Amino acid sequence: MHGKIALEEAFALPRFAERTKWWAGLFAVDAAKHTAEINDIREKRIEYMDNHGVGYTILSYTAPGVQDIFDPKEAQSLAVEINDYIAEQNKGLEHRFGAFATLSMHDPKEAAAELRRCVRKYNFKGALVNDTQRAGPDGDDLIFYDQPEWDEFWETVTELDVPFYLHPRNPTGTIHEKLWAKRSWLIGPPLSFAVGVSLHLLGMVTNGVFDRHPKLQVIIGHLGEHLPFDLWRINHWFEDVKKPLGLNKTCNKTIREYFAQNIWITTSGHFSSPALALCLTEVGAKRILFSIDYPFESFADACDWFDATELNEVDKRAIGKGNALELFKLGDVHGRDA
Amino acid sequence: MHGKIALEEAFALPRFAERTKWWAGLFAVDAAKHTAEINDIREKRIEYMDNHGVGYTILSYTAPGVQDIFDPKEAQSLAVEINDYIAEQNKGLEHRFGAFATLSMHDPKEAAAELRRCVRKYNFKGALVNDTQRAGPDGDDLIFYDQPEWDEFWETVTELDVPFYLHPRNPTGTIHEKLWAKRSWLIGPPLSFAVGVSLHLLGMVTNGVFDRHPKLQVIIGHLGEHLPFDLWRINHWFEDVKKPLGLNKTCNKTIREYFAQNIWITTSGHFSSPALALCLTEVGAKRILFSIDYPFESFADACDWFDATELNEVDKRAIGKGNALELFKLGDVHGRDA
Amino acid sequence: MHGKIALEEAFALPRFAERTKWWAGLFAVDAAKHTAEINDIREKRIEYMDNHGVGYTILSYTAPGVQDIFDPKEAQSLAVEINDYIAEQNKGLEHRFGAFATLSMHDPKEAAAELRRCVRKYNFKGALVNDTQRAGPDGDDLIFYDQPEWDEFWETVTELDVPFYLHPRNPTGTIHEKLWAKRSWLIGPPLSFAVGVSLHLLGMVTNGVFDRHPKLQVIIGHLGEHLPFDLWRINHWFEDVKKPLGLNKTCNKTIREYFAQNIWITTSGHFSSPALALCLTEVGAKRILFSIDYPFESFADACDWFDATELNEVDKRAIGKGNALELFKLGDVHGRDA
Amino acid sequence: MHGKIALEEAFALPRFAERTKWWAGLFAVDAAKHTAEINDIREKRIEYMDNHGVGYTILSYTAPGVQDIFDPKEAQSLAVEINDYIAEQNKGLEHRFGAFATLSMHDPKEAAAELRRCVRKYNFKGALVNDTQRAGPDGDDLIFYDQPEWDEFWETVTELDVPFYLHPRNPTGTIHEKLWAKRSWLIGPPLSFAVGVSLHLLGMVTNGVFDRHPKLQVIIGHLGEHLPFDLWRINHWFEDVKKPLGLNKTCNKTIREYFAQNIWITTSGHFSSPALALCLTEVGAKRILFSIDYPFESFADACDWFDATELNEVDKRAIGKGNALELFKLGDVHGRDA
Repeated sequence: MHGKIALEEAFALPRFAERTKWWAGLFAVDAAKHTAEINDIREKRIEYMDNHGVGYTILSYTAPGVQDIFDPKEAQSLAVEINDYIAEQNKGLEHRFGAFATLSMHDPKEAAAELRRCVRKYNFKGALVNDTQRAGPDGDDLIFYDQPEWDEFWETVTELDVPFYLHPRNPTGTIHEKLWAKRSWLIGPPLSFAVGVSLHLLGMVTNGVFDRHPKLQVIIGHLGEHLPFDLWRINHWFEDVKKPLGLNKTCNKTIREYFAQNIWITTSGHFSSPALALCLTEVGAKRILFSIDYPFESFADACDWFDATELNEVDKRAIGKGNALELFKLGDVHGRDA
Repeated sequence: MHGKIALEEAFALPRFAERTKWWAGLFAVDAAKHTAEINDIREKRIEYMDNHGVGYTILSYTAPGVQDIFDPKEAQSLAVEINDYIAEQNKGLEHRFGAFATLSMHDPKEAAAELRRCVRKYNFKGALVNDTQRAGPDGDDLIFYDQPEWDEFWETVTELDVPFYLHPRNPTGTIHEKLWAKRSWLIGPPLSFAVGVSLHLLGMVTNGVFDRHPKLQVIIGHLGEHLPFDLWRINHWFEDVKKPLGLNKTCNKTIREYFAQNIWITTSGHFSSPALALCLTEVGAKRILFSIDYPFESFADACDWFDATELNEVDKRAIGKGNALELFKLGDVHGRDA
Repeated sequence: MHGKIALEEAFALPRFAERTKWWAGLFAVDAAKHTAEINDIREKRIEYMDNHGVGYTILSYTAPGVQDIFDPKEAQSLAVEINDYIAEQNKGLEHRFGAFATLSMHDPKEAAAELRRCVRKYNFKGALVNDTQRAGPDGDDLIFYDQPEWDEFWETVTELDVPFYLHPRNPTGTIHEKLWAKRSWLIGPPLSFAVGVSLHLLGMVTNGVFDRHPKLQVIIGHLGEHLPFDLWRINHWFEDVKKPLGLNKTCNKTIREYFAQNIWITTSGHFSSPALALCLTEVGAKRILFSIDYPFESFADACDWFDATELNEVDKRAIGKGNALELFKLGDVHGRDA
Repeated sequence: MHGKIALEEAFALPRFAERTKWWAGLFAVDAAKHTAEINDIREKRIEYMDNHGVGYTILSYTAPGVQDIFDPKEAQSLAVEINDYIAEQNKGLEHRFGAFATLSMHDPKEAAAELRRCVRKYNFKGALVNDTQRAGPDGDDLIFYDQPEWDEFWETVTELDVPFYLHPRNPTGTIHEKLWAKRSWLIGPPLSFAVGVSLHLLGMVTNGVFDRHPKLQVIIGHLGEHLPFDLWRINHWFEDVKKPLGLNKTCNKTIREYFAQNIWITTSGHFSSPALALCLTEVGAKRILFSIDYPFESFADACDWFDATELNEVDKRAIGKGNALELFKLGDVHGRDA
């Protein structure tokens, strides 16, 4: 399919190239290639896009990013730098690239203000935040955005009418670490990423964030971080047990209604036809968005799979670009009508 | 279907009835009913079985059970009591009931010995253990069975040629608790159970337990604790990234091979046709076993769903009873040829 | 689901009650009940609709109906009678009932004129025609609507902007009969219906009807008369073999494009979740419409199945009523917003 | 997958090369290539098999073959010639090739005798017959094998304990022709093949062939010639309507039981993942067999698709070769344990 739109696509700051390379050594077979790819925006990336039928990409700063910085001032300063950087990089390429705002999540008011700045000044398409914000004097604490003090932030998100992408991050420096230390091969995509995001998103659901902000649109990657598979079981326990015991005080819709009204999933990093088939049934094509997770995943793996996916044309177009065109109110992006 | 076989079916010790009722108040809408059902074996349970076409049940002690007892002696003593109790209860009803051994998991040698006793003396069908063993002087530690010192235990399991059911438990008294405290509605079936078991099972995979014990058969419930949905992503990262980086030192087969050779999933508590359809594709009918999770789930929910499930007759019989008849080498159990 | 909309729902003319009962004896276990149900419009039918959450029904004359009448004048006269009758019956119940025009298909011009009359005068929602028109002096001929002389008719259909429902009929009085005589249990829903309609619809495709009338919308029942299952094979042979050999002279789009742009399928008489799952993949929820096939099928079978179908809320609503509301431009029908 | 086994693979007699080429012009884009491929056995075919991981092939004479010959003596003579020819060709290649007997179906006794000769003398693996036998003085009649006089033949088939492959053929020279003449692009794989075979197979079902020969094993290609998609509807009408009206006189099991006990489907010519997924649910992996339909289909299309199919390892091996190894009692064929 030509003109596909991809949404979970990372860049890094070139000034951190050394650190990026060290970091890549933890998960990439070829750390140098990874570093080159993540630092590039206008060359190799556009070549990949052209070769694999991707018309438009919304860029976001790589994980764990600002969410790993437990000093609030440093975090905010870096977020602003990143946003200014990517806005500059994308200049003149608005038909190929958009950006998600990077936000320090130490303070709801500050996060809201920076998001507003990015949307108003730079026409950013929303925000992408990496699961919990590391915090505390020694970086041992985790800030979740499912608590009441974040209502102010969510108000701004819905007022600006932009989606919020909840992206995973490694559990570095947190109480998770002890559990994972002796099974470290599971850190990242095989397991810990989905554990973190599914907890956080369902925390938002059960703590009433979507009830208080019914227009809020949250995107999660990797075909929904296992949640679509468990919708029956979650729904059954919420409706038949948890609500009678009090969950209904915060959370009044069913989990299926939140998935129909507030939640989107992307294909990033999970190029599995059986998993997609389940998502078509449990989530529906109108709430699924194509994405790659480049450069952690390759354009070839993602695009060859999606292009070969046996799916009716209406839904395939919706997932490949149609839904994104509507959700992000995209105008004349490259390949729109291809 | 008549003669279904169910495998994740709980009982409690009547002498703990008060505590059981208090506990049930945390998750059951009708705690008294739950308490009565979990303490009963020979009356209400058989009536349900007869009314819903369940021929045979393998009973197991309710979670968190012995895995919550951090004093090793107390844990072992309770395990022995439970095993003797259920052996006595099942006398004369061997065509309707089998049992999984309850094990204290403080010491691999002790656990192995008690399993051997139960299989040899009582003809138990294997063991069911509730995720991690709480341990340490204050109960703050967790014992995982994926470490090298457990090889001795797994040797006994494979020597006895019986399956091991890895069942979830609540994360009481552990480092999990802080994370879950502000999103406590997710504790149990909606999320934390699968988080715990999937980590533990993949820990066994990546730490080489199945490589060192290739005949070991492990059962997990709830249609695989989300893992079937993620097989593509797990496989991709294991094969393309983690093994080149060193995972191949402990773990030589693919995740799909472990699922084909060592792992079974049951339908307990996840009566979802789309999820079952995915499991048929990713796991296969030869590795799926019917189960209920009574009395946390009802016979009606489980059996009405399974009986109505649209599935070819060959696979439906395999899941409903055929696979269990083979795996547990069951002889003349009730409803076998119904 | 409340407010479902059903589209393949039959009525008969009460003056034929005796013949209807004789006919019903060929396929109905209780011919008297069938006769009563098919002749009733305003009583039993509305009771069923209310009890099973059907808000609105588009009525059509029962098969084989006018398509079985090989005398052109008699056929036209009956068609007009039927259309006037059902228009009269539905008066005052426009929020519960619409109608498809019954058409004599002996002459394209006449059929077009009668359709125009029904749409203009009575606000009928389109036409429902029973496969081929029996014709010829002895009724041995079959008229297909996939020939060039029918372009005039299709022009009117698209000009009026209403859908055309291609419904099966028994192969009475045709060259089919010899083949089916010794396997007569296959006549009707088990096999011959789909054989007839799939031939006719693919005849329209390959003879270029949709290329010449790209706005034409044709509905077929029974989850697509097996065609969704065969889309890959049809597409492969059309694109890779038949078009290079000349099919491209009449037919320029792919079969998947016709299904995306011109063809709708309904659930009538095929209440199968695996078959629906395939249709969701191959046809897509935006092109599937709920229907029953009453009184050949029961409201209970259709509605209990659909209501219990495990499907995301967005697509379920689309199939249950949303698509029909759009396709037929329905206004304030009963249960629209339920 | 290495060592795949393929079952619907055609050869022709070289002495008919001119006719074969003319015939190929009707459906093949490159008639010369088709003719070369179908006449070759030991060279190009083995090269394809080696390149695409096919270990073993059961060969059969191309359609319409002997079923198109309405002179009984000529038909029998040709059948014998074909069987002797392929037996000779396969000599020394028994680890790569088996054969299905070609049979003249004018006379049940004669057909049975020739099958017996081929199985006893040549170790043929069963028979493959092309739908109906053209018959009558002018070739206008069709012989179906679902009539009582064929019981003698089916007795021999079951006595020899070999499967019978019911393969499609074009409706040349029959009453079908008039219907298909004006929509001739539908002749063959797009539609008419499945129409013929599904009628014939369901004729066998409803006329009691499988009730009288409960051990009979019949294979149909193309993922079941649409029947798996319609099992619900067929079953519903058979059980709820047709049996109460008399079908139970000949046919006592359900259609699902015949599919579980007597019918096999192959993937020949239908390399569609959504269709296969439906078949896994409705027919089950234990009754599905890999096949190609070479040289009407290419090894690449079939094998690339199957090898890439996302399916658990147990079922994939069963479909790819395991089921065939059992069904045909194959010994040391090439790639068996690959």
